[in-house]
Amino acid sequence: MRVLLRVAYDGTKYSGWQIQPNAVTVENVLIEALEGLFGKKVEIIGASRTDAGVHAYGNVAVFDTDTKMPAEKISYALNQRLPEDVRVQESVEVEADFHPRHRDCVKTYEYRIWNDRFESPLNRLYSHFYYGKLDVDAMKEACGHFVGEHDFTSFCSAGSQVVDKVRAIYSLDVKREDRLITIRVTGNGFLYNMVRIIAGTLLRVGEGKIKPSEIPAIIDGKDRNLAGPTAPAKGLALVEIKY
Amino acid sequence: MRVLLRVAYDGTKYSGWQIQPNAVTVENVLIEALEGLFGKKVEIIGASRTDAGVHAYGNVAVFDTDTKMPAEKISYALNQRLPEDVRVQESVEVEADFHPRHRDCVKTYEYRIWNDRFESPLNRLYSHFYYGKLDVDAMKEACGHFVGEHDFTSFCSAGSQVVDKVRAIYSLDVKREDRLITIRVTGNGFLYNMVRIIAGTLLRVGEGKIKPSEIPAIIDGKDRNLAGPTAPAKGLALVEIKY
Repeated sequence: MRVLLRVAYDGTKYSGWQIQPNAVTVENVLIEALEGLFGKKVEIIGASRTDAGVHAYGNVAVFDTDTKMPAEKISYALNQRLPEDVRVQESVEVEADFHPRHRDCVKTYEYRIWNDRFESPLNRLYSHFYYGKLDVDAMKEACGHFVGEHDFTSFCSAGSQVVDKVRAIYSLDVKREDRLITIRVTGNGFLYNMVRIIAGTLLRVGEGKIKPSEIPAIIDGKDRNLAGPTAPAKGLALVEIKY
Repeated sequence: MRVLLRVAYDGTKYSGWQIQPNAVTVENVLIEALEGLFGKKVEIIGASRTDAGVHAYGNVAVFDTDTKMPAEKISYALNQRLPEDVRVQESVEVEADFHPRHRDCVKTYEYRIWNDRFESPLNRLYSHFYYGKLDVDAMKEACGHFVGEHDFTSFCSAGSQVVDKVRAIYSLDVKREDRLITIRVTGNGFLYNMVRIIAGTLLRVGEGKIKPSEIPAIIDGKDRNLAGPTAPAKGLALVEIKY
């Protein structure tokens, strides 16, 4: 059977999701746990290859197994074998041809900014610290210009080999709760570093260096140099993937 | 002049607040940063000697210095010298006889419980993981019985040498946001492990093992054995101290 896992992790100590030689990745520790459990080689297909330092509440991966164990029990058995910064939240059987990257889906990411005079020790691992004043109303105003289907070439790291850079953003919101600013974005897929470049651009808007009304021209320009910088990895978390 | 510091820390790696030989404590790293900054011996008086693993958004400490540096600037200079899990949030001059443990104050603590099937990697360091079902309404009902001035002997670890165990709790609330349950308590002072024993007792109420209506008898019994267990340190954070 094919089993789907929903995986949460603290990305702080990992060199991202994807398996790599000479580095510890989330995929590495998941495969190790699966192979320890089943006593044979296991391959997994991940939905989102998150970067080094990026967190997840619910990344998705599938693998095939001939185990007699009910799919629902696999999460419990895996969590016994995983380090405490990786936890399988759910394991369920899916169709044999379910491919987590080739299915239509809705992904949600959050980018968190700690906006205060000083860094917060209790939020430092899961947010980007920003000292300066931020105009959150301007950031909110800018959000509206991102929503819809666009060619997001300006919001894709130059190294990407993806050809079709059209993606749909269903919602993009910014909220402030005391010193924590959270950017939440939902869409049908995201280009390489797209959420971090949107966050970096919204930070420039908050600083007053980009006007909300300039966003359409930045999108239309299809040039990575027009958008803001790529915001640091640790502020980013993949919240969920819905199929 | 005497300077008051408001100090936030991630208690995960510390053997508590109070200075100890052969252990790394928050007071140790603060003194090291102060002595590095001023080039001479410094003694500090802390408001709350938090236990190993307990966190703080705003513990308070005072020290005396003959520096010419304005008190407000000391926070910036200290943060350059502190590890990233300790940050001074504020530094202000206070009266020369200001003693943070001998002044009337209002302290607020939070105890966080992650209540789900599986541990959350992103909340694991700052909450106590509890797998089972919890009746939050019963926990809320129990809270009311703690409010007011009582002898809290039943909620004080047996080893404490404090004689007068009467304390006033001004408010005690429980709220659930999705899988996170937060207990928030405000009072004029707390006995050794008092908040963690209240949290452990409220957990017993949530499990249905103690009824809310039994709380008055547990308080009146003045016997540590009547209350619930001491909940784990990592769920606890000292939120603020108001003078």
